[in-house]
Amino acid sequence: MIAETISVGTELLLGQTLDTDAVFIAQMLSRLGISIHFRSTVGDNRGRMQEAIRLALSRADLVITIGGLGPTMDDLTKETVGEVLGIGFREDVAHAQWLRDLFARRGTAAPPPSFMKQALVPEQGRGLPNPNGTALGALFEKDGKMVICLPGPPNELIPMAEQSVEPFLLEHTSGARQVIVSRVLRIVGMGESGVEERVRDLMLGSSPSVAPYAKTGEVHLRITARAGSEEEAQAIIAPMDAALRERLGDTIYGMDKETLEQATVGLLLAQGKTLAVAESCTGGLISKRITDVPDASRVFGLGLVTYSNQAKTQFLGVPEATIKEFGAVSPQTARAMAEGVRTAGGADIGVSVTGIAGPGGGSDAKPVGTVHIGLAWDDGSVSRHERILGGRTDVSYRAAQGALALVRRFLLHPEGEEFQG
Amino acid sequence: MIAETISVGTELLLGQTLDTDAVFIAQMLSRLGISIHFRSTVGDNRGRMQEAIRLALSRADLVITIGGLGPTMDDLTKETVGEVLGIGFREDVAHAQWLRDLFARRGTAAPPPSFMKQALVPEQGRGLPNPNGTALGALFEKDGKMVICLPGPPNELIPMAEQSVEPFLLEHTSGARQVIVSRVLRIVGMGESGVEERVRDLMLGSSPSVAPYAKTGEVHLRITARAGSEEEAQAIIAPMDAALRERLGDTIYGMDKETLEQATVGLLLAQGKTLAVAESCTGGLISKRITDVPDASRVFGLGLVTYSNQAKTQFLGVPEATIKEFGAVSPQTARAMAEGVRTAGGADIGVSVTGIAGPGGGSDAKPVGTVHIGLAWDDGSVSRHERILGGRTDVSYRAAQGALALVRRFLLHPEGEEFQG
Repeated sequence: MIAETISVGTELLLGQTLDTDAVFIAQMLSRLGISIHFRSTVGDNRGRMQEAIRLALSRADLVITIGGLGPTMDDLTKETVGEVLGIGFREDVAHAQWLRDLFARRGTAAPPPSFMKQALVPEQGRGLPNPNGTALGALFEKDGKMVICLPGPPNELIPMAEQSVEPFLLEHTSGARQVIVSRVLRIVGMGESGVEERVRDLMLGSSPSVAPYAKTGEVHLRITARAGSEEEAQAIIAPMDAALRERLGDTIYGMDKETLEQATVGLLLAQGKTLAVAESCTGGLISKRITDVPDASRVFGLGLVTYSNQAKTQFLGVPEATIKEFGAVSPQTARAMAEGVRTAGGADIGVSVTGIAGPGGGSDAKPVGTVHIGLAWDDGSVSRHERILGGRTDVSYRAAQGALALVRRFLLHPEGEEFQG
Repeated sequence: MIAETISVGTELLLGQTLDTDAVFIAQMLSRLGISIHFRSTVGDNRGRMQEAIRLALSRADLVITIGGLGPTMDDLTKETVGEVLGIGFREDVAHAQWLRDLFARRGTAAPPPSFMKQALVPEQGRGLPNPNGTALGALFEKDGKMVICLPGPPNELIPMAEQSVEPFLLEHTSGARQVIVSRVLRIVGMGESGVEERVRDLMLGSSPSVAPYAKTGEVHLRITARAGSEEEAQAIIAPMDAALRERLGDTIYGMDKETLEQATVGLLLAQGKTLAVAESCTGGLISKRITDVPDASRVFGLGLVTYSNQAKTQFLGVPEATIKEFGAVSPQTARAMAEGVRTAGGADIGVSVTGIAGPGGGSDAKPVGTVHIGLAWDDGSVSRHERILGGRTDVSYRAAQGALALVRRFLLHPEGEEFQG
């Protein structure tokens, strides 16, 4: 099967938006072993959209359009596909009712027709549910060709692609197909060149291929194999996965989409331990990342963002003298914050970050990017110093990464050398 | 002048690379007032590249290709453009010598022909210097059409675009040259269709054009004008900006890249007021967004992430009876949290969020997405109920957006009706 994608939106042509949707869809199609020969982008213009759709249908069996399904005058994709294919529309009764209810709850008058067109589905084909938005997606089928229309906002497109499109295509393409399967190993606490140094010889092959990607605060190694089936591809990947793990040990914290916060919360859950967090320069990011993990409430009860010195003393019991003598950004303050939040939250482990995120506030002795991370447990505490390069967002993200990595290392090796007095 | 870009590379079609080059070129062309109607992407395949180039030449005066200029077998762009246009090549003598010297310095034998092809330039047109790489770019000119070939690595493409392409096009289009200038108005507290309803008649024109974009928790209106100069374009935008502001009032919180947290911190700074934050389902996101703003420390001292009921009672003084009677997710708890954190932090304003972010924890009475926002000031407090659709991340982001918007409204209109008991 050959596919093409058409991204719709003048803002894409003007370079105002990066087309991450098309990349997401391309990855999905390639996982399914569906070839893409062309990808195109067109503005919110009916005539040019018709031209793009016709051309794509002449070259491909499956066309996926991205964007232009919303309630405004500029949103023309679904009707234009219908015009090109000569397929009419009917209203999805349940969705239409839901849209009317939505309007009614807002206390507004009846919804305008432009809003209600979001409930239209093709007469030859069907609608695709959109769990995060008001516009239904659409699947058109005619003369052996298919057109799938998805909305542009990634938080709508991604779940629809995963929940509706991928299962549909998987079924549709079963039979003779080649799949491309990737696995990502996620590494924390080692830089890209350090990783490459340890695994360079393993990166020379092509089946599977191994490629490193530097991400903020971590490194990803992507293992990719192409085979007749998912199982065959996994069988090619498995020994390489094992070889990489032997080289990199537990700097590998997770696989594929697993985040460091998921890995950390997973360990806390497995060990039945709780965590409390005290933050200064990370401003709430560590708590946010932990609570992004669905089961976090079982291991996390309290986070304190003590931006002011007074809050550090009042809520964490950091002695004023400590702040006075060593400064708010110091190993001593970091340890006192971790100990204080552990006690305040009645948690097994306390973790803290204090630092200078910039752009202001730096000095020669403590430049922007100076960060101290504290960790406290029932009978001890440590601090770690990091010097992070980058802007305010980078410093904050990497400091949070360092704190989560420290908690993870402690959970894995509480008797490890770095946690001995 | 109408332009098209063609990005070349199988890795793009597989979704392994995000096409930032095409965005960079699109922004440059739009700065120069050159229209783009289509953009396409094609793999490293001679036949399909020919097809893409022919099509682009049939629709545009200028075609810019991105990628495929290197020394490997896969790099076919320049020769394929030559084939389609019927233009031959000659060797750039100086560059060829530089390539040979490069090989000699590496102590290798004579360079292979595939390496030397990087020195070929079109017989009708010229080469474009590449300060950061070995492959020359190329400019082909024939029958009033132009094709410019640039290399794929951004560190090569960007300086070449800036140093060679932009000046060339600037000169080429001078005379009837136009610039495209955009301004984005950022709106909170009103949905896309609500915005459109109020400004629909203003969206019908084309100079300037006005287009809405739905973002998570906010709506953007983009005003775009095309004119002979930046100043003329701004003069076209200004009256539309004023007209939109008259319709939308202070639901417009900012312009261009300004975020809601920046706008809110800006108001706090201007009024010399401080804010304390108590969060449950947003898990630290509000504090994080506020502290992302560089001057936040002057208005923000304390944020509390009270995930557990115990922490709500212990640190915010929410009465156990309130939680017992109304629940942790209730207007009463939200108000008590806002009042408690305002007192604890010694701040002028306290804001709080409690809600059910999902995926678990919902009930018929309080489904996932139920959120209560509390706001407390020196002599009063209110709560707001929201019902948010979407996954955990959406609920959290939109709840934070609602809390920041409420703080902003209070700062703008403390005497407003919604803040009267």
